[in-house]
Amino acid sequence: MAKEVTKRSENYSQWYDNLVVKADLAERSAVRGCMVIKPYGYAIWEKMQHILDTMFKETGHQNAYFPLFIPKSFLSREAEHVEGFAKECAVVTHHRLMANPDGPGVVVDPSAKLEEELVVRPTSETIIWNTYKNWVTSWRDLPILCNQWANVVRWEMRTRLFLRTAEFLWQEGHTAHATSEEAVAEATRMVNVYADFARNYMAMPVVVGHKSPNERFAGALDTLTIEAMMQDGKALQAGTSHFLGQNFAKAFDVQFTNKEGRQEYVWATSWGVSTRLMGALIMAHGDDNGLVLPPALAPIQVVMVPIYKSQEERSAILGKMDELKKELEAHGHTVKIDDRDTLRPGFKFAEWELKGVPVRIAIGPRDMENGTVELARRDTLEKTSAPQEGLGRRIEELLDEIQRNIYAKALKFRDEHIIKVDTWEDFKEKIEQGGFLLCHWDGTTETEERIKEETKATIRCIPIDTAVCEEEGKCIYSGKPSGRRVLFARSY
Amino acid sequence: MAKEVTKRSENYSQWYDNLVVKADLAERSAVRGCMVIKPYGYAIWEKMQHILDTMFKETGHQNAYFPLFIPKSFLSREAEHVEGFAKECAVVTHHRLMANPDGPGVVVDPSAKLEEELVVRPTSETIIWNTYKNWVTSWRDLPILCNQWANVVRWEMRTRLFLRTAEFLWQEGHTAHATSEEAVAEATRMVNVYADFARNYMAMPVVVGHKSPNERFAGALDTLTIEAMMQDGKALQAGTSHFLGQNFAKAFDVQFTNKEGRQEYVWATSWGVSTRLMGALIMAHGDDNGLVLPPALAPIQVVMVPIYKSQEERSAILGKMDELKKELEAHGHTVKIDDRDTLRPGFKFAEWELKGVPVRIAIGPRDMENGTVELARRDTLEKTSAPQEGLGRRIEELLDEIQRNIYAKALKFRDEHIIKVDTWEDFKEKIEQGGFLLCHWDGTTETEERIKEETKATIRCIPIDTAVCEEEGKCIYSGKPSGRRVLFARSY
Repeated sequence: MAKEVTKRSENYSQWYDNLVVKADLAERSAVRGCMVIKPYGYAIWEKMQHILDTMFKETGHQNAYFPLFIPKSFLSREAEHVEGFAKECAVVTHHRLMANPDGPGVVVDPSAKLEEELVVRPTSETIIWNTYKNWVTSWRDLPILCNQWANVVRWEMRTRLFLRTAEFLWQEGHTAHATSEEAVAEATRMVNVYADFARNYMAMPVVVGHKSPNERFAGALDTLTIEAMMQDGKALQAGTSHFLGQNFAKAFDVQFTNKEGRQEYVWATSWGVSTRLMGALIMAHGDDNGLVLPPALAPIQVVMVPIYKSQEERSAILGKMDELKKELEAHGHTVKIDDRDTLRPGFKFAEWELKGVPVRIAIGPRDMENGTVELARRDTLEKTSAPQEGLGRRIEELLDEIQRNIYAKALKFRDEHIIKVDTWEDFKEKIEQGGFLLCHWDGTTETEERIKEETKATIRCIPIDTAVCEEEGKCIYSGKPSGRRVLFARSY
Repeated sequence: MAKEVTKRSENYSQWYDNLVVKADLAERSAVRGCMVIKPYGYAIWEKMQHILDTMFKETGHQNAYFPLFIPKSFLSREAEHVEGFAKECAVVTHHRLMANPDGPGVVVDPSAKLEEELVVRPTSETIIWNTYKNWVTSWRDLPILCNQWANVVRWEMRTRLFLRTAEFLWQEGHTAHATSEEAVAEATRMVNVYADFARNYMAMPVVVGHKSPNERFAGALDTLTIEAMMQDGKALQAGTSHFLGQNFAKAFDVQFTNKEGRQEYVWATSWGVSTRLMGALIMAHGDDNGLVLPPALAPIQVVMVPIYKSQEERSAILGKMDELKKELEAHGHTVKIDDRDTLRPGFKFAEWELKGVPVRIAIGPRDMENGTVELARRDTLEKTSAPQEGLGRRIEELLDEIQRNIYAKALKFRDEHIIKVDTWEDFKEKIEQGGFLLCHWDGTTETEERIKEETKATIRCIPIDTAVCEEEGKCIYSGKPSGRRVLFARSY
C-alpha cells in the first residue's frame, strides 16, 4: 500500500505527523505555522462543532460574532493578560499595498500606516468586554451568555498540525454574571460540558481539575481543565474554562446596578476548545493502520466495498449495496459505497482503515448467493459474516458497541497509567515511562518550576475528584506537608 | 415606545441604520469598520448558513479551511487580482509586541518584523490555488469542489453595518475542473443555487445575469450575479459566481494530465455570499415598525404574549401557552413565550414587531373562556381570532402563507419598478425615481463609465433571461446599435 504510516512503537511523534497528512486530515500551508484543513478533516471538525453547539444552546448560550482585530491598547488593560499574549501577536500596521516603485510586485504603502496598530485576536476577552460595557446597565441585563466560533492567531515558534498552529479554529464562550457564585457555577458547568463531550462523543476519558496558579489562563482567578492521556502516556489539555473574577470588568469598567441599587463590577467566565481536539482524537485512538474514529464523530460510519470479477457481478452487488445503503441511512447512519472500478479491494480496505471508518462491509459473489455480508470492525480489526436481512439493526448495535469499546479501551489504558508516586527517585524513573503521576506537592510555584526543569513534567491539574486526591502527605520534591495529591505529566 | 425607528419615507438610509441597531442585529465595534454581530442577528445568519451549507452539499461540495493570511507576493501573481484588492488590504508586518520602554502599555517589537508581509485574506483564490497545485496531478483528481466558511477583510473607507464592513463573514466556493465547459456549468449552477436561496428562503426576488466586463471580479473571465431590488428602488448585489478560466491555474502553475496524456492548465470557478445578505433581508422587507422576517429565516417564528391582570390569570394562561408551544414545536416551529412580568403587553407587541417575528399569539382571560387565541401577522399587521384546537395546523398554514406573501409583495414591487427606457432624457429622469432601467447599451466601457459619472447608475447585469432582453435597438447614451437590453440601477 502506497500510504504507509510509521509505526507507533518506532516513533510515536512521526506516526502522528504521518497520519494527519496521509489520512487527508490537514497539511501545512505556504504560510508559516498555518494549516490547511482538508475536507475529510474538516468534516470531523464540523461534527464536533455541531454537537458542541447543540450542547451550548441546551445550556442557554447564544452565538454572536466579535471583530477579528483588537486595538493594541486594549491588550494592555489587563496586566497579566498582556503579559501572557504580547509575545505571540500578529500585528496589522498598514491598510494598503501599492505597486512597487522599484520593480515588480507590490509593497506596503507607507502612507497607509494605522494610527493604532491592530492585533489579530489571540483570544477575545478584551474586545468582548469592551463591547459588554455597552450592554450592561442593570442586574436585569445579566447574565450574558455568548459563544463565538472563530479563528484565532498565536504566533507559536514551533508548530504541529492541529496541536499547535499559528492560526487555529475554536469556540470561545464569554459570560457575564451578577455574582461571583454564578460565574463560578458557569465555569464549572462548561468544563463539565467539555468532559461529557470528550467521553460520550470523542470516546476519550478525561481528568477534570483546576490548573495550578502558575498554569492559569492569563487574567483568570481559576482555570478548570480537561486533561486526556495520549497513547504515549503524555497529557493533552483538551479544553479549559476560566473564572475571570472581576478582572476584565475592572479593566473595561463594566459595572451594573444590583438589586439593592448599588454599582458593582460584573463577574466573568470564558471557556474554549479548539481544533486541537482533532489532534487529541487522532492520538487517543489511532493505531498502526491509521485512524480509529468513534462512530459518533466519523464522517463516514460505514463503507461498502464490492468484490467482483465480472461486470455482471459488479452491477448485481452494487444494486444490493444501494438497497442496503438506504436501509442503513434510514437508521440514521452515514454510508459510502466505494464503487471505484480501477482499484483492488485490498487497496480500498487499507485506505478506509487509514481513514478510520468504523465499519466496513464487503460483499462478494458468494455473499450474494448466501444472502450475507462480511463485516469488519475498525477498532478490533475483527471480521464476521452477517445476514443481509436485518442489517440496519445489526449495524446500529455494532456502531454502539464500537463507540463503547473505543472508550473502554482508552479508559483501561489511561487508568493503568495513572500511578501514585511518593518519592522523588520513583518520580524521576516513572515519568520516563509516561503516564500521569499522582503526587503530593507543597503548593508552591517554586517547587513546580524545579520539577519542570528537572523532568519536563508539569502539574496538569488538581483533580476535582477529591476522593482520589484528598489525603495528607509530603511533597515529593520538597518534603513539606501537603493536603492532597495533584496530577503530574509530560504534555503536548 | 422607547425604540422608535426613523420612517422609511423620511430617510430610508437612516431607517436602515436605526433598525439594524434597534432590532439588536449588529452594532459598530471599537475597531474601525468592524461590526459586532449580536445574538439575534447571528441567529438569522446561522439559519442562512445552515440552509446554504445543505444546498452546497447537495450539489456535491465539501467544506475545508484555508489560512487567514496570504503572503504578499501571492497577491501579485495574477495581475488583475492584485489591482483589484491591493488598495484595501490589512497587512501584518510583525509577530510580537513588547513592553513600551518609554512608558506604559505595549509597542510593536521592531526585532519581530516578518521577512515577507502577510495580507489578511480579502478573498482566497491565491492561497487556495497555491494549495490545489499539490492536490492535482491527473484528470482523476478533478473536479475539486471545496467551500469555506470564513471571515475576510477589505479595508473599505466608508462602512455600513452588514452592507459594507472592513471584516465580514462569508462563504467562498473554489472549484477546479478539467474543462472550460465544466467550469462554466459550475459557475452557472452556483448562481442558480443563490437565486433559489434568495427566492425560496429570503423571499427576495432576484435578477440573474452577467456582469459587464468592467464590473467583473478581479481575475474573472465572467461574473454571474444575483441582483435584488431594495424598497428605495436601488439594487443590491446579493451574490456572485465567477468563471475564472485558467487565470489562477496559470498564476500558480496548476496543471494536470488529461485523458489523452497531455498537460493542461486547470479551469476554475469561485462563488460567494456574505453577511451582506443580512442587509438585503432587512431592506427588502422591513417596514416602519421594524423587521419583517420571512418564516424560513426567523429565529423565532411565533411569539406568545399573555394578557392578564391577576397572577391566577397569568398562571392559567402560561399553562395553556406551554401546551400550545409543545404542539407548535411538534410541527417544527420555533416558539417563544414572553413571560416577562415587568412589561406591558403593548410594549412587548412593539418589541416583537421591531424584531420581525412572523406570528404573534396573544391570549387573554376572554380567550381562555372561549378557547381562542388572537393571531397577529407581522407582514400585514392583521389580527384574527382562531380556535386553540388545531392551532398547530393553522400556524403551519399561516407561516407558509406569510412566506409566500412576503415574496409576492417584494416581487410585485420589483416588477413595478423594472422599466424599459429608450431615451437619455427619460433615463436621467427615471433614475432619480429609483428602480431598474432596462436599456440598450453599446457594449463599451466608455459609455458605461460616462453614464455612471452623469447619473451614478451602473450596469447591474446583463440578464440571462434572453426573452426579456434580446432585442435590436440603439444605445440610450451613444445611439450606437445594440443587440440586447441591460439592467441599469443605482446600487448599494
